[in-house]
Amino acid sequence: MASRDLANALLAPRTIALVGASGDPAKNSARPQRYLRKHGFSGRVILINPVRGEICGERTWPDLDSAPGPIDHAFIMVPAASVPKVIEDCCRARVRVATIFSDDFAESGEEGLRRQQAIVEMARAGGVRILGPNSMGVINTHAGATISVNAVLELPELKAGSLGVVSHSGTILGTLLSRGQARGIGFSKLVSIGNEADLGVGEIADILVDDTETSAILLFLETIRDPAALGAMAHRAYAAGKPVIAYKLGRSPVGRQLALSHSGAMTGPDEAANAFFRHHGIIRVDMLETMIEIPALVTGHKPTKEKRVAVLTTSGGGAAMVVDRLGALGVDLIFPPESVIACLKPMGIRVGKSPLIDLTLAGTKNEIYLAALNALLASPDCDVIVAVVGSSGQFHPELAVEPIVSAAKTDKPVAVFIAPQADQSLALLGRAGIAAFRTPEACADGVKAYLDWSAPSEEIPAPMRDLKAIRKALGRARRPVLNEIESCEVLETLGIPQAPAEIIRQQGETPGINFPVAAKILSADFPHKTDVGGVELDIPDEAALHEACRRILRRVRTAHPKAEIAGILVQQMQHGLAEAIIGYRDNPETGPTVMLGVGGTLTEIYRDFAIRIAPVSLATARTMIEEVRGLATIRGTRSLAPGDCEALAEAIRAISDLACIPERPILEADINPLVVKARGEGVTAVDGLVVRKSEKGSK
Amino acid sequence: MASRDLANALLAPRTIALVGASGDPAKNSARPQRYLRKHGFSGRVILINPVRGEICGERTWPDLDSAPGPIDHAFIMVPAASVPKVIEDCCRARVRVATIFSDDFAESGEEGLRRQQAIVEMARAGGVRILGPNSMGVINTHAGATISVNAVLELPELKAGSLGVVSHSGTILGTLLSRGQARGIGFSKLVSIGNEADLGVGEIADILVDDTETSAILLFLETIRDPAALGAMAHRAYAAGKPVIAYKLGRSPVGRQLALSHSGAMTGPDEAANAFFRHHGIIRVDMLETMIEIPALVTGHKPTKEKRVAVLTTSGGGAAMVVDRLGALGVDLIFPPESVIACLKPMGIRVGKSPLIDLTLAGTKNEIYLAALNALLASPDCDVIVAVVGSSGQFHPELAVEPIVSAAKTDKPVAVFIAPQADQSLALLGRAGIAAFRTPEACADGVKAYLDWSAPSEEIPAPMRDLKAIRKALGRARRPVLNEIESCEVLETLGIPQAPAEIIRQQGETPGINFPVAAKILSADFPHKTDVGGVELDIPDEAALHEACRRILRRVRTAHPKAEIAGILVQQMQHGLAEAIIGYRDNPETGPTVMLGVGGTLTEIYRDFAIRIAPVSLATARTMIEEVRGLATIRGTRSLAPGDCEALAEAIRAISDLACIPERPILEADINPLVVKARGEGVTAVDGLVVRKSEKGSK
Repeated sequence: MASRDLANALLAPRTIALVGASGDPAKNSARPQRYLRKHGFSGRVILINPVRGEICGERTWPDLDSAPGPIDHAFIMVPAASVPKVIEDCCRARVRVATIFSDDFAESGEEGLRRQQAIVEMARAGGVRILGPNSMGVINTHAGATISVNAVLELPELKAGSLGVVSHSGTILGTLLSRGQARGIGFSKLVSIGNEADLGVGEIADILVDDTETSAILLFLETIRDPAALGAMAHRAYAAGKPVIAYKLGRSPVGRQLALSHSGAMTGPDEAANAFFRHHGIIRVDMLETMIEIPALVTGHKPTKEKRVAVLTTSGGGAAMVVDRLGALGVDLIFPPESVIACLKPMGIRVGKSPLIDLTLAGTKNEIYLAALNALLASPDCDVIVAVVGSSGQFHPELAVEPIVSAAKTDKPVAVFIAPQADQSLALLGRAGIAAFRTPEACADGVKAYLDWSAPSEEIPAPMRDLKAIRKALGRARRPVLNEIESCEVLETLGIPQAPAEIIRQQGETPGINFPVAAKILSADFPHKTDVGGVELDIPDEAALHEACRRILRRVRTAHPKAEIAGILVQQMQHGLAEAIIGYRDNPETGPTVMLGVGGTLTEIYRDFAIRIAPVSLATARTMIEEVRGLATIRGTRSLAPGDCEALAEAIRAISDLACIPERPILEADINPLVVKARGEGVTAVDGLVVRKSEKGSK
Repeated sequence: MASRDLANALLAPRTIALVGASGDPAKNSARPQRYLRKHGFSGRVILINPVRGEICGERTWPDLDSAPGPIDHAFIMVPAASVPKVIEDCCRARVRVATIFSDDFAESGEEGLRRQQAIVEMARAGGVRILGPNSMGVINTHAGATISVNAVLELPELKAGSLGVVSHSGTILGTLLSRGQARGIGFSKLVSIGNEADLGVGEIADILVDDTETSAILLFLETIRDPAALGAMAHRAYAAGKPVIAYKLGRSPVGRQLALSHSGAMTGPDEAANAFFRHHGIIRVDMLETMIEIPALVTGHKPTKEKRVAVLTTSGGGAAMVVDRLGALGVDLIFPPESVIACLKPMGIRVGKSPLIDLTLAGTKNEIYLAALNALLASPDCDVIVAVVGSSGQFHPELAVEPIVSAAKTDKPVAVFIAPQADQSLALLGRAGIAAFRTPEACADGVKAYLDWSAPSEEIPAPMRDLKAIRKALGRARRPVLNEIESCEVLETLGIPQAPAEIIRQQGETPGINFPVAAKILSADFPHKTDVGGVELDIPDEAALHEACRRILRRVRTAHPKAEIAGILVQQMQHGLAEAIIGYRDNPETGPTVMLGVGGTLTEIYRDFAIRIAPVSLATARTMIEEVRGLATIRGTRSLAPGDCEALAEAIRAISDLACIPERPILEADINPLVVKARGEGVTAVDGLVVRKSEKGSK
């Protein structure tokens, strides 16, 4: 099916079949008919009900076979067990899109998953695209196509607007629509995607990229199932000047657990999702209302490199809340630029060296507020403006928003926060397309999200330098979890320097490397060697080495008599200025990622690491080193000797190259620790672990 | 003046004089007269204006001297330069409270500060209490006493309620009042305290503790100027069953800078403010709207020791936002208790092992929602309930809130979040005194703030064990910054073990302590000895020590030829399982605090420390050790050997005792590092720094 056909059938169908339509007004399945009539859908509505002959005065048909075609879109509300039969009918009737409201599919367990797979196969074979199951449906406010049971459609009328929504949660459609509409903010198309058995977030959002009625795309995500499609859509949306704004659950472990139990979807660490969004130029917000408040701040604007924020107010307390919050989010606020001071002086307003340009009560005069705002808009010293409005926002809405409406027409984004209850002012600003925030927290969230926004990455990965060697090294390992020697061989093919090492297989063997050395048990059974007493460090000479080997083997064999032991790895001790961890992981949600953290237990305790979508360039690897707080010691700050950050960046880039093996055979690879030596002396991997994907795909 | 007199004059005066009242409706000074009439103030209003004979049909007097007494409360709106004269008049006329709206006092610099001090002295001598200057005034909704220029008084009527407000920001009175009133939440008294030249937050809030019209006290704080008064008030409020809820600016450096530039107030680290609030049983919230939303959640309830939260919903997406946010705040969510599962089963509702009790669409039936809610209220396995309401909240407000209104009458707090736009439901819940939250973020903030709440500390500090010794040790130091030896002598009197050490004053001297040793420059000029090359460690023998001393002296003298050097401190090297920092500080906002962090640079990089109001008991010191993430290694987790946490707790308790010296002579004292040895082997201070307050008070 060509994409335009799909778009029309999904979002602007001429004929909609409601399968399982009910005449009992207490039932959800009675709603879509009513909503379609109420909101003025002008196409045909076909009611499918095997029992009743009419519902609310409209004729019904017993099934799709008997109904008059062609039918573009079927909305299926029958119990799960009856859905396969309906899909069969859809295929025969050449229905283009079947939206399945019914639940009890993949989200309810193994059996439901099988049921879901069966209907998808059937639909694919028959040329029917599926939305859902477990989808609340589709709303097109411009066409009155309200193919949904969502109770938000009880609204007396739907204000048409230009925000498109794609959501894993069906109820969130109503939450966004009702809150937006109360603020003068309208939507174009809203789609509840349910289990994403066929049509996914990426493909649907991609349709919105081409939709002329949509100017910004909002995503409410529980998980990411198809990162490639989502990423590609985001690149197209950016090119089309349509910002993509995401709210994603899973910031906390319990949130991720919920996504798993709610939709059966695996999630990765939240930081990987952040890296994914940043990589693809998607704006991530942290708060519900920011979703509807931020589009006006970013639409028509580009990401900014400089991140200097000016806050203008007549209400000290209200603005201070935004400033403090922005500060807590790490945003830099500027003092009033000279041009603003100069412009206010003749009006008798003196503003001082404060991160808040407070016009005080004097500034409640509109000509003063407007002059200050225009001076800020013209100033080359600030990149975003926060304009805070005080009590006039409540009692004189037209007056209060007037200077903002007349001024805000430049390339520079302006975020407005209104301190008191001010529904009318908010609605006026909403209708004028100006970004207005109801709370100081959402205002700061929106500004921060804008500042964090960057264009989608255009980095083109270099081809893998020795694909053959790495495949060969991987092929030598017998099990998915490689032992240390096998792991190091893989990592060595990437060009990451390894500490000199040898295997002792027999008691009393002498290694040919310089003392002092470390001795480590070599066994894929123990990825955490220290925990089993399998490591001794700083061994000064041969006699001590033999002793150490005996102790290690005794400890390990006593505790784990059945372990498969390949020998003892003897490795030259390495000393440097710092230890780092670098890691590669093919993440379930985002695809390949590369991370950098400080070595030891700190990465885990402080979650102090930088993460990016792999592969990365050397330049990106350098920004990762800047981000890790615990590596401040080697960045050449204070009186400390700088470490070899260039060699570290090269190692990050190299391990990220694992993403370039076309068949992506590796689940994860870590070097922990990677010893970072003084500038010019390089880095050395002291321990490595590589895990292949198991036969079934990811572990 | 007795407190009841002050309370009446401040909040419920019979006669109010408006000094500088204006007849020009464009002027702020015209407002109070209009507002008092509009909101039905039944007492006398005396207009003071030297020029006009009448304003809006009411007679004026040229000055207070000529006006008919007695006057309880004067609201002063004349320019700063004229204020002293008016205060003089107030004294003569025996006005009880003078609220000064005029600005250009302490907040504007040195000259303003002197002007402020002068009027306070005059007022004290004359028996007049001052509110402000730079105060927006006082609002008493119950009596219509709207002694303020705040434009929120344009509201057609003021809903009387039971929330009292004391705020550093005048505009915030309007923000809270207007947002609350729109939600069915009313206020009793609102006070803008301005510069706190005389009447402060603590004293005014203390009046509200005794005010029968006030059930909860909200504080909007830029700083804390009188921690003792605020703390004492909080203890009384707790005993009276009136929760004290604080929003405090200064979470970020820029927020603290703002407080400084706005009000001239010094602030300390935000973590100290947190410790202060916790210590005194004050509930701190993080978001603006939480201030008005949380009182119903906590009023009539006690702090909870167990912190198990259950989330009940019919709207998966809406509740997931609250759950994820709670998780990110570190709150524990429970799976459905058995009793809830058992209660729902006969109704055909199956809830699974998920941190969200999702009744789905079936649960939109009120009897099911009510049954689940009642089961949770009765369950001994949960301590707080979050009830999330979906789209019914928008279209059927009475119906939607009905199960919550009929159920929520137990000791267990219930927080309601309504996902869609639902003004009517929010107002219904507000009027019913049920805690309803407009955003998932404020809901999580409110629940978290409730869980963090604890009763005010009842710990009674033990008397200082050797006051004479510590005063003597302090007396030996010539300068406010003590050198290492002097510092250690002070710390030793507290009973904190010190590493054996000796001073070498002459080249070639030999210390009587065992090698290996450390050598450190001894000079109060270098509190950071390492930065000047003044430290060498792990010196194995006497010859190496002499070399090391020579090197240290050469480095220091070359770089700082004028430094005052008392010798070289030779100290036995100490090894343990971890290094900690412990510190005491007499904080400008909160008074004495004690902190514990991990040693080295980590405390600073990760802000990983615990802080409490000093002095602390041993039990509190133990909870501090639990809080520091980087000390996980010594808490006996995993396979690591446990450190001597008891000795560490004892050292924390001991240094916190510095708060018990009556004259509080010490500004700060640090031990960094304090070496923590294996369990039973104690702790040893390796370096110490004590700073006395300088003559003028705090540094």
